[in-house]
Amino acid sequence: MSFSGKYGPWALVVGASVGLGAAFAEGCAKRGLNVALVARRAGPLEEIAAGLRDRHGVETRTVPGDALRPDFAEELAAATADLDIGLLIYNCAGEHSGAFLDMTPAAILENVQINCTTPTFLAQAFGRRLVARGRGGMAFVTSKSALRGWPGWISYSASKAYEMLLGEGLWGELRPHGIDAHTYVVGSTYTPAYVAMQERLNTPFAKSIDPKDYPPGTRLPRLPETVAESLFPRLGTQPRLYSHPEDEADAASFDQSPRSEAVAAANPLYAEAVRATLAPGA
Amino acid sequence: MSFSGKYGPWALVVGASVGLGAAFAEGCAKRGLNVALVARRAGPLEEIAAGLRDRHGVETRTVPGDALRPDFAEELAAATADLDIGLLIYNCAGEHSGAFLDMTPAAILENVQINCTTPTFLAQAFGRRLVARGRGGMAFVTSKSALRGWPGWISYSASKAYEMLLGEGLWGELRPHGIDAHTYVVGSTYTPAYVAMQERLNTPFAKSIDPKDYPPGTRLPRLPETVAESLFPRLGTQPRLYSHPEDEADAASFDQSPRSEAVAAANPLYAEAVRATLAPGA
Repeated sequence: MSFSGKYGPWALVVGASVGLGAAFAEGCAKRGLNVALVARRAGPLEEIAAGLRDRHGVETRTVPGDALRPDFAEELAAATADLDIGLLIYNCAGEHSGAFLDMTPAAILENVQINCTTPTFLAQAFGRRLVARGRGGMAFVTSKSALRGWPGWISYSASKAYEMLLGEGLWGELRPHGIDAHTYVVGSTYTPAYVAMQERLNTPFAKSIDPKDYPPGTRLPRLPETVAESLFPRLGTQPRLYSHPEDEADAASFDQSPRSEAVAAANPLYAEAVRATLAPGA
Repeated sequence: MSFSGKYGPWALVVGASVGLGAAFAEGCAKRGLNVALVARRAGPLEEIAAGLRDRHGVETRTVPGDALRPDFAEELAAATADLDIGLLIYNCAGEHSGAFLDMTPAAILENVQINCTTPTFLAQAFGRRLVARGRGGMAFVTSKSALRGWPGWISYSASKAYEMLLGEGLWGELRPHGIDAHTYVVGSTYTPAYVAMQERLNTPFAKSIDPKDYPPGTRLPRLPETVAESLFPRLGTQPRLYSHPEDEADAASFDQSPRSEAVAAANPLYAEAVRATLAPGA
């Protein structure tokens, strides 16, 4: 079956206004899928939708909405009830981080809502629709931080681990109904959110990802288009997909390390202090 | 430093009224720790507390409370404000399961609250107290279901994966402050909840776990005392601890399998239908 026969005629991309989400929308449109785009801000969505129509001649719909709202899934299902959606890509992320004991309750609850609760209810609402039509797919975009506890990003990494297993479990329950569900584990991607974080951390990745600007062998963040394009050809092959073979190799190496080392190595800001507690006599 | 010097004088065991939680409370008391016990029902807590006082001569406090309440962590911190707690063991679980598309919103939200949100806020409330005193530990009891998406248990396994990474990340952030935080990955344990589930599924494990009643090589659920006792001597050694070497070997084998097979194999009720979708020509 063709890509659009299996996953069309409409895709729904949630968190589509910038970066990776916009790249997923582009990837859907270039494969002939009409695209419903969702994000908080209507303006950027309209711009992206216009570009998709111009470049690919597909239909679009923009649905402003906030994945933090408890009724988001229900509202989105209603706003797209007339569309024959075959592919859901959930690309939102609550990304609150920082020293865990100082996090506000609101920051923790946002990570849980956006990375756990909302995708669960979306999976139910759109899973029912996909199962009723007997074909389609879903992809939940999670992060390499879901692969090990991450000092400095505890709440984020834990909530992304939830999302990782959500996509995997859905794969198991929905395959027999003709639906391909996935978790998509993404490494560092050069999105506006990534650049902003690098600016806060004052790293050189904020200014450039041109390999010429770095020592040979430096592992650079990847472009959103690269990361998005890596997903589409592999839909239906495995419940957990990695954005790059390097990410998959990293996952295997975390699994083979002592957990103490995998966790310590996750964040250079904590690594030295953690390792000091492991040294003999420390 | 002695066990009670490091993790005493008080332990707080949340979800302590039956099964594994009661066994953790026993393990703390036999090591000379006073024990604050928390669960929904006051009656069983009082009985367990009386047994601990009789057998081990320790002090006890019972705190009835429901981990489903949004203010649970705050209330529990207040109810134990006068106790010098050195060890928190969180053993509650939202265990709603079943075909994912048929789960009620309430069931999903209970799994998220009890397995994600509540332990996060407990980790903050008690993490601050432990850091202020400069020594102590925490253990979050999670499940082997957190190791892969689990058809039929999607919401549960995802929420337990959150808890797994919560404990690991805390280990990394709190070790430099003298605190040993852990996630404790537990396999099948012969608790009342387990027996009830086996009865619903009509398996022989509901009636017996005597090896004599099973073919040689059958892997039986483990007794709560065995699982609880396996934790204590290893506190402080690794962020992720497994209740038995077999569980750790299983985790390694999941990591080495194709994810499609790891997910399919998780639940015999789904395995055949999932595998059929993978067969050539299926």
